Amino acid sequence: MSFEPDADAAHLREELLSRTPVFEGRLLHAYRDEVRLPDGRTAGREIVHHRGAVAVVPVAPDGRVVLVRQWRHAVERALWEIPAGTRDRGEEDPSGTARRELEEETGYTADRWRFLGQACVSPGYSRELLWFYLAEGLHEGTAATDPDETIDVRLFSPGEVVHLLQAGATDCKTLAGLAMAGRLAQVAGSEVP
Amino acid sequence: MSFEPDADAAHLREELLSRTPVFEGRLLHAYRDEVRLPDGRTAGREIVHHRGAVAVVPVAPDGRVVLVRQWRHAVERALWEIPAGTRDRGEEDPSGTARRELEEETGYTADRWRFLGQACVSPGYSRELLWFYLAEGLHEGTAATDPDETIDVRLFSPGEVVHLLQAGATDCKTLAGLAMAGRLAQVAGSEVP
Repeated sequence: MSFEPDADAAHLREELLSRTPVFEGRLLHAYRDEVRLPDGRTAGREIVHHRGAVAVVPVAPDGRVVLVRQWRHAVERALWEIPAGTRDRGEEDPSGTARRELEEETGYTADRWRFLGQACVSPGYSRELLWFYLAEGLHEGTAATDPDETIDVRLFSPGEVVHLLQAGATDCKTLAGLAMAGRLAQVAGSEVP
Repeated sequence: MSFEPDADAAHLREELLSRTPVFEGRLLHAYRDEVRLPDGRTAGREIVHHRGAVAVVPVAPDGRVVLVRQWRHAVERALWEIPAGTRDRGEEDPSGTARRELEEETGYTADRWRFLGQACVSPGYSRELLWFYLAEGLHEGTAATDPDETIDVRLFSPGEVVHLLQAGATDCKTLAGLAMAGRLAQVAGSEVP
C-alpha cells in the first residue's frame, strides 16, 4: 500500500520544551508541558500519564463475546467492557498482560491468540495506548479477582452489543475491539432532524 | 430484547462520599474522590473531569470516510481521526456541536445526520462521554480552523483504516465510529505464539 500514516507530518509536529508535574496521585499523574509549535511559537499542553494497557476480545465458539461489568466511578455507572488491564511496570510483552487479565477477570483461558493492532485511547490529553488481542479456543475456569473487586461476566451476541451502545453502557475500546474481531454489527441509528 | 444493561447492578454501585480538586488546569481538571464500596468500606478514586464530546463519521458517496490529522502531543505523534470536539459549556444539543465540528475541521457540510449511540472514552479515570453521529450527503467547503491549528483532511477506504490501526496511527473513537457506520473491515491480525 502506498499510504504511509506518518509521512509528511513535519508541518504538524510539536516539540517538547519542558515538563512540569502538576499532580502525582496514586494512579493518576498529570503534567503541564510547554511545546514549540511548527510556526515557532510556544504553547502549553496538559496531559495525563499512562503506562499503556491491553484489551482482549474473547470470542466463544458460538460467536458471542465475553464481556465483564464493573462499576466505573468516573462515569457513575456500571459498564460492560472487554477484559482489559494496565501494563505492569517493566512487563515486556503486552501479550503476557493480555493472558493474565483474561484469566484474572473472567476465569477463561484461550488456546489461540492474535494481535489485532494498537490505538490511542484519548489522545487529546492522555498518553494511554491500547494493545488489542483476539482470544479464541476458550476454556472456562475460575476468576481471580481481588477481594475488593466485584466483576460480572456474561456472553454477548453482536445484537446485544448494539443495545449496550444505545444505552451508553459500554466504552470505545470495547466497540473498537469487537469491530476488529468482526463482532460488531453496523448500527442503523436514529435520524437527526 | 430482554437484556437491560443497568439491571441488577446494585452489587457493584459505589457511592460518592467526598470530592477534592487536586489540579485545576486550563483544560484539565482532576479530583480525588472518596467512595463507599458495596461492602461498606471506603476507597479513593482519582478522576479527570470532562464536559463530554461529539464525534462525526462523515461518509462520502463512494463509501470512503473523511478523517482529519493533527499532532497529538500526549502521544507524540500525528493521528488520523474522525472529526470530533468537546461540547461547549451550556450547549444543549450535541448534534449542533457535531455539525459545527465537521464544518470547522473539514469544511464539509452534510445533508443527512443520524445519531449512532454514546460510549465512554476511558472510564477507568475519565468522565468523558462521546456522542457518535453519522453524516451523509457531504458537500465540500472551506475549513475554518483557528490560526494556531493545523489540520490535514483526507478520504480513507476501509482497507486504509486497517493500515492506520496496524501503524498505531489512529484512536479508539475512530475505530468505534467507523465500525458503527459499517466502514471498518474485520482485522485478520497476526498470530501470537
